[in-house]
Amino acid sequence: MKLLEERIRKDGIVKEGNVLKVDSFLNHQMDTDLFNEMGKEFKRLFAEKPINKILTIEASGIGIACIVAQHFHVPVVFAKKSQSINIDGDVYATKIQSFTHKKVYDVIVSKKYIGKEDHILLIDDFLANGCALEGLIDLVQSAGATVEGIGIAVEKGFQEGGKRIREKGIQLESLAIVDAMDSQTGEITFR
Amino acid sequence: MKLLEERIRKDGIVKEGNVLKVDSFLNHQMDTDLFNEMGKEFKRLFAEKPINKILTIEASGIGIACIVAQHFHVPVVFAKKSQSINIDGDVYATKIQSFTHKKVYDVIVSKKYIGKEDHILLIDDFLANGCALEGLIDLVQSAGATVEGIGIAVEKGFQEGGKRIREKGIQLESLAIVDAMDSQTGEITFR
Repeated sequence: MKLLEERIRKDGIVKEGNVLKVDSFLNHQMDTDLFNEMGKEFKRLFAEKPINKILTIEASGIGIACIVAQHFHVPVVFAKKSQSINIDGDVYATKIQSFTHKKVYDVIVSKKYIGKEDHILLIDDFLANGCALEGLIDLVQSAGATVEGIGIAVEKGFQEGGKRIREKGIQLESLAIVDAMDSQTGEITFR
Repeated sequence: MKLLEERIRKDGIVKEGNVLKVDSFLNHQMDTDLFNEMGKEFKRLFAEKPINKILTIEASGIGIACIVAQHFHVPVVFAKKSQSINIDGDVYATKIQSFTHKKVYDVIVSKKYIGKEDHILLIDDFLANGCALEGLIDLVQSAGATVEGIGIAVEKGFQEGGKRIREKGIQLESLAIVDAMDSQTGEITFR
């Protein structure tokens, strides 16, 4: 998606260790007009799929997921990163390794909000090693629901997550795939 | 706001200890068409204010804030509940006591995304004792920015937060104010 690639070139910051910071428009600060254009594009890409629910994971996936959901007119469910006393007892649970935060999270979703009748679009802001997405896929499968597709804003194409998930036969659409970045020059190469 | 009150009566669950669960449409699972109507109402209520940014707090405030932001055409910034290695060093920080989770959070926002030129609308899903909101007000004031108003989905009118914040002279608009709930009968009384 040209608009997103241009925005990453303009406002993204490449740091050492293959870190791409898009804090100023994609997470922490969020440009909802941009999200709206992303929602239109996901709707076009998944137009044929019988999607009745969007699943994302807190925190930075929620904003994109909610705006995308307006284009599908479906509810959003977000998976929570640790047991909350305000969630009813019956939950599906999985564990997700976060390399960013260097820890393993318990991730849960209430059994009330995902079931075998659901056809789910997974939405997240970033895809790198794919651990978060594989956790979400695991939750959906635990519920007996169907993953109809996955929509990602920015994929780090030089990490293995995207390849591994596409090999499962799931329709994975990333609006910008970064194949290389140079922290010296700030240059970003898109696929 | 009649639409929200009706939805709370229909789908909200009153539990012992003055707990109101609105998990099925306001958080965990989110009805973005409802959020869109809430956004229109906040736009009407704050039409006179020179709002250029919305600030909320992760996680359940983010969805509402992003959809409300579409009506104001302003970016959303969300305050984060703990130090992340992906946030640049320079942050405003405060502490917020959570009674729900029985702990004290460090809450931060990057100095890049809030400054003295900002006129801010605070958005959150719930207002009870007001600790989270007072933390956000503290962050805004640390930045030298202006709180133009506060928009809340559901206020527990029988707790002190709303009263204390209105006494500061801030325009606080709650779309539904619950004055009493009965966990035996499930009855909810709105202001």
